[in-house]
Amino acid sequence: MYVAMNRFQVRPEAATAFEQMWLKRETRLPEVPGFLSFHMLRGPQREDHILFSSYTLWASRDAFEAWTKSPQFASAHKAAASKTGSDQKSEQQPMTIGSSQFEGFEVLQVIDGK
Amino acid sequence: MYVAMNRFQVRPEAATAFEQMWLKRETRLPEVPGFLSFHMLRGPQREDHILFSSYTLWASRDAFEAWTKSPQFASAHKAAASKTGSDQKSEQQPMTIGSSQFEGFEVLQVIDGK
Repeated sequence: MYVAMNRFQVRPEAATAFEQMWLKRETRLPEVPGFLSFHMLRGPQREDHILFSSYTLWASRDAFEAWTKSPQFASAHKAAASKTGSDQKSEQQPMTIGSSQFEGFEVLQVIDGK
Repeated sequence: MYVAMNRFQVRPEAATAFEQMWLKRETRLPEVPGFLSFHMLRGPQREDHILFSSYTLWASRDAFEAWTKSPQFASAHKAAASKTGSDQKSEQQPMTIGSSQFEGFEVLQVIDGK
Protein backbone atom coordinates (compact mmCIF):
# COMPACT_ATOMS: atom_id res chain seq x y z
CA MET A 1 0.00 0.00 0.00
CA TYR A 2 0.99 3.61 -0.50
CA VAL A 3 0.13 6.87 1.25
CA ALA A 4 -0.07 10.25 -0.47
CA MET A 5 0.08 13.07 2.05
CA ASN A 6 -0.34 16.76 1.37
CA ARG A 7 0.51 19.28 4.05
CA PHE A 8 -0.99 22.78 3.98
CA GLN A 9 0.08 25.79 6.02
CA VAL A 10 -3.23 27.64 6.36
CA ARG A 11 -3.51 31.22 7.56
CA PRO A 12 -5.47 31.15 10.85
CA GLU A 13 -8.09 33.61 9.56
CA ALA A 14 -8.74 31.32 6.56
CA ALA A 15 -8.99 28.05 8.51
CA THR A 16 -12.79 27.87 8.57
CA ALA A 17 -13.09 28.62 4.86
CA PHE A 18 -10.37 26.07 4.09
CA GLU A 19 -12.20 23.38 6.08
CA GLN A 20 -15.49 24.17 4.40
CA MET A 21 -13.92 24.03 0.94
CA TRP A 22 -12.78 20.46 1.66
CA LEU A 23 -15.94 19.30 3.39
CA LYS A 24 -18.25 20.66 0.70
CA ARG A 25 -16.33 19.58 -2.37
CA GLU A 26 -17.61 16.87 -4.65
CA THR A 27 -15.21 14.01 -5.02
CA ARG A 28 -15.14 10.92 -7.17
CA LEU A 29 -12.27 9.37 -5.24
CA PRO A 30 -14.33 6.32 -4.14
CA GLU A 31 -14.70 5.36 -7.80
CA VAL A 32 -10.98 5.57 -8.58
CA PRO A 33 -9.29 2.14 -8.98
CA GLY A 34 -7.01 1.38 -6.06
CA PHE A 35 -8.38 4.11 -3.78
CA LEU A 36 -8.78 2.81 -0.22
CA SER A 37 -9.44 5.75 2.14
CA PHE A 38 -9.00 9.47 2.66
CA HIS A 39 -8.63 11.47 5.86
CA MET A 40 -8.70 15.27 6.07
CA LEU A 41 -6.83 16.39 9.18
CA ARG A 42 -6.53 19.57 11.21
CA GLY A 43 -3.27 19.74 13.10
CA PRO A 44 -1.33 22.02 15.39
CA GLN A 45 -1.43 25.80 15.32
CA ARG A 46 1.97 27.33 14.78
CA GLU A 47 3.07 30.95 14.93
CA ASP A 48 1.71 32.05 11.56
CA HIS A 49 -0.41 29.10 10.39
CA ILE A 50 -2.46 26.02 11.21
CA LEU A 51 -1.14 22.77 9.75
CA PHE A 52 -3.73 20.81 7.79
CA SER A 53 -2.95 17.52 6.13
CA SER A 54 -4.68 15.16 3.74
CA TYR A 55 -3.87 11.47 4.06
CA THR A 56 -4.87 9.19 1.19
CA LEU A 57 -4.33 5.44 1.32
CA TRP A 58 -3.91 3.62 -2.01
CA ALA A 59 -3.61 -0.05 -2.87
CA SER A 60 -0.26 0.72 -4.53
CA ARG A 61 1.96 3.53 -5.70
CA ASP A 62 1.00 2.61 -9.25
CA ALA A 63 -2.69 3.18 -8.48
CA PHE A 64 -1.88 6.62 -7.05
CA GLU A 65 0.26 7.56 -10.03
CA ALA A 66 -2.40 6.43 -12.49
CA TRP A 67 -4.85 8.73 -10.70
CA THR A 68 -2.46 11.70 -10.89
CA LYS A 69 -2.29 11.24 -14.67
CA SER A 70 -6.05 11.18 -15.13
CA PRO A 71 -8.04 14.15 -16.51
CA GLN A 72 -10.21 14.04 -13.34
CA PHE A 73 -7.15 14.70 -11.16
CA ALA A 74 -6.07 17.65 -13.27
CA SER A 75 -9.44 19.35 -13.15
CA ALA A 76 -9.92 18.73 -9.41
CA HIS A 77 -6.53 20.16 -8.52
CA LYS A 78 -6.79 23.13 -10.83
CA ALA A 79 -9.99 24.17 -9.05
CA ALA A 80 -8.43 23.68 -5.60
CA ALA A 81 -5.31 25.67 -6.47
CA SER A 82 -7.46 28.57 -7.59
CA LYS A 83 -9.46 28.53 -4.35
CA THR A 84 -6.53 28.24 -1.97
CA GLY A 85 -4.47 30.81 -3.85
CA SER A 86 -1.58 28.40 -4.20
CA ASP A 87 -1.46 29.09 -7.92
CA GLN A 88 -0.56 32.70 -7.02
CA LYS A 89 -3.09 34.03 -9.52
CA SER A 90 -5.97 34.65 -7.14
CA GLU A 91 -6.86 38.25 -6.45
CA GLN A 92 -7.89 37.35 -2.92
CA GLN A 93 -5.44 36.82 -0.08
CA PRO A 94 -4.42 33.17 -0.45
CA MET A 95 -5.64 30.73 2.20
CA THR A 96 -2.27 29.03 2.44
CA ILE A 97 1.31 30.15 2.95
CA GLY A 98 2.98 28.86 -0.20
CA SER A 99 2.04 25.67 -1.97
CA SER A 100 1.10 22.43 -0.31
CA GLN A 101 3.94 20.04 0.51
CA PHE A 102 3.59 16.56 -0.95
CA GLU A 103 5.04 13.48 0.76
CA GLY A 104 4.64 9.94 -0.56
CA PHE A 105 5.09 6.93 1.74
CA GLU A 106 5.38 3.20 1.33
CA VAL A 107 3.30 1.41 3.98
CA LEU A 108 5.61 -0.95 5.89
CA GLN A 109 3.18 -2.21 8.51
CA VAL A 110 -0.52 -2.10 9.32
CA ILE A 111 -1.94 -2.98 12.74
CA ASP A 112 -5.71 -2.88 13.15
CA GLY A 113 -7.71 -2.61 16.35
CA LYS A 114 -9.86 -5.46 17.58
CA MET B 1 -11.39 10.66 15.68
CA TYR B 2 -7.82 11.72 16.31
CA VAL B 3 -4.49 11.00 14.62
CA ALA B 4 -1.16 10.85 16.43
CA MET B 5 1.72 11.14 13.98
CA ASN B 6 5.40 10.79 14.77
CA ARG B 7 7.97 11.79 12.18
CA PHE B 8 11.51 10.38 12.32
CA GLN B 9 14.55 11.59 10.40
CA VAL B 10 16.49 8.34 10.03
CA ARG B 11 20.12 8.19 8.93
CA PRO B 12 20.20 6.33 5.57
CA GLU B 13 22.68 3.73 6.87
CA ALA B 14 20.33 2.94 9.78
CA ALA B 15 17.13 2.66 7.72
CA THR B 16 17.04 -1.13 7.55
CA ALA B 17 17.72 -1.52 11.27
CA PHE B 18 15.07 1.11 12.04
CA GLU B 19 12.48 -0.74 9.92
CA GLN B 20 13.31 -4.07 11.54
CA MET B 21 13.03 -2.58 15.02
CA TRP B 22 9.45 -1.53 14.24
CA LEU B 23 8.44 -4.66 12.39
CA LYS B 24 9.77 -7.01 15.04
CA ARG B 25 8.55 -5.23 18.14
CA GLU B 26 5.83 -6.65 20.31
CA THR B 27 2.90 -4.32 20.65
CA ARG B 28 -0.24 -4.39 22.72
CA LEU B 29 -1.83 -1.52 20.83
CA PRO B 30 -4.78 -3.63 19.58
CA GLU B 31 -5.83 -4.12 23.20
CA VAL B 32 -5.75 -0.42 24.08
CA PRO B 33 -9.22 1.16 24.45
CA GLY B 34 -9.98 3.52 21.58
CA PHE B 35 -7.16 2.29 19.33
CA LEU B 36 -8.34 1.95 15.72
CA SER B 37 -5.33 1.45 13.45
CA PHE B 38 -1.60 1.99 13.03
CA HIS B 39 0.47 2.51 9.90
CA MET B 40 4.27 2.55 9.80
CA LEU B 41 5.44 4.52 6.78
CA ARG B 42 8.66 4.96 4.85
CA GLY B 43 8.79 8.28 3.05
CA PRO B 44 11.08 10.35 0.88
CA GLN B 45 14.86 10.33 1.07
CA ARG B 46 16.29 13.76 1.76
CA GLU B 47 19.89 14.95 1.74
CA ASP B 48 20.91 13.53 5.12
CA HIS B 49 18.00 11.30 6.14
CA ILE B 50 15.00 9.21 5.16
CA LEU B 51 11.68 10.40 6.54
CA PHE B 52 9.72 7.70 8.38
CA SER B 53 6.36 8.36 9.96
CA SER B 54 3.99 6.48 12.23
CA TYR B 55 0.28 7.22 11.83
CA THR B 56 -2.05 6.07 14.61
CA LEU B 57 -5.80 6.52 14.39
CA TRP B 58 -7.72 6.79 17.68
CA ALA B 59 -11.42 6.97 18.46
CA SER B 60 -10.79 10.29 20.23
CA ARG B 61 -8.05 12.54 21.53
CA ASP B 62 -9.04 11.45 25.03
CA ALA B 63 -8.36 7.81 24.16
CA PHE B 64 -4.91 8.75 22.85
CA GLU B 65 -4.10 10.82 25.92
CA ALA B 66 -5.22 8.06 28.27
CA TRP B 67 -2.80 5.72 26.47
CA THR B 68 0.09 8.19 26.81
CA LYS B 69 -0.47 8.26 30.57
CA SER B 70 -0.43 4.47 30.93
CA PRO B 71 2.56 2.53 32.33
CA GLN B 72 2.60 0.45 29.10
CA PHE B 73 3.21 3.59 27.03
CA ALA B 74 6.08 4.71 29.25
CA SER B 75 7.89 1.38 29.09
CA ALA B 76 7.37 0.97 25.31
CA HIS B 77 8.73 4.43 24.55
CA LYS B 78 11.65 4.19 26.94
CA ALA B 79 12.82 1.06 25.11
CA ALA B 80 12.38 2.70 21.71
CA ALA B 81 14.27 5.84 22.71
CA SER B 82 17.19 3.73 23.86
CA LYS B 83 17.27 1.79 20.58
CA THR B 84 16.98 4.79 18.26
CA GLY B 85 19.45 6.83 20.27
CA SER B 86 16.99 9.67 20.63
CA ASP B 87 17.58 9.69 24.37
CA GLN B 88 21.21 10.65 23.60
CA LYS B 89 22.48 8.06 26.06
CA SER B 90 23.23 5.28 23.62
CA GLU B 91 26.86 4.47 23.02
CA GLN B 92 26.08 3.59 19.40
CA GLN B 93 25.56 6.13 16.65
CA PRO B 94 21.88 7.09 16.96
CA MET B 95 19.54 5.89 14.20
CA THR B 96 17.74 9.22 14.01
CA ILE B 97 18.78 12.84 13.64
CA GLY B 98 17.36 14.40 16.80
CA SER B 99 14.14 13.31 18.44
CA SER B 100 10.97 12.34 16.66
CA GLN B 101 8.54 15.14 15.85
CA PHE B 102 5.03 14.66 17.19
CA GLU B 103 1.96 16.08 15.44
CA GLY B 104 -1.61 15.55 16.65
CA PHE B 105 -4.56 15.98 14.27
CA GLU B 106 -8.31 16.16 14.57
CA VAL B 107 -9.97 14.09 11.81
CA LEU B 108 -12.33 16.40 9.91
CA GLN B 109 -13.46 14.01 7.19
CA VAL B 110 -13.22 10.34 6.28
CA ILE B 111 -13.95 9.00 2.80
CA ASP B 112 -13.76 5.24 2.29
CA GLY B 113 -13.35 3.32 -0.95
CA LYS B 114 -16.08 1.13 -2.32
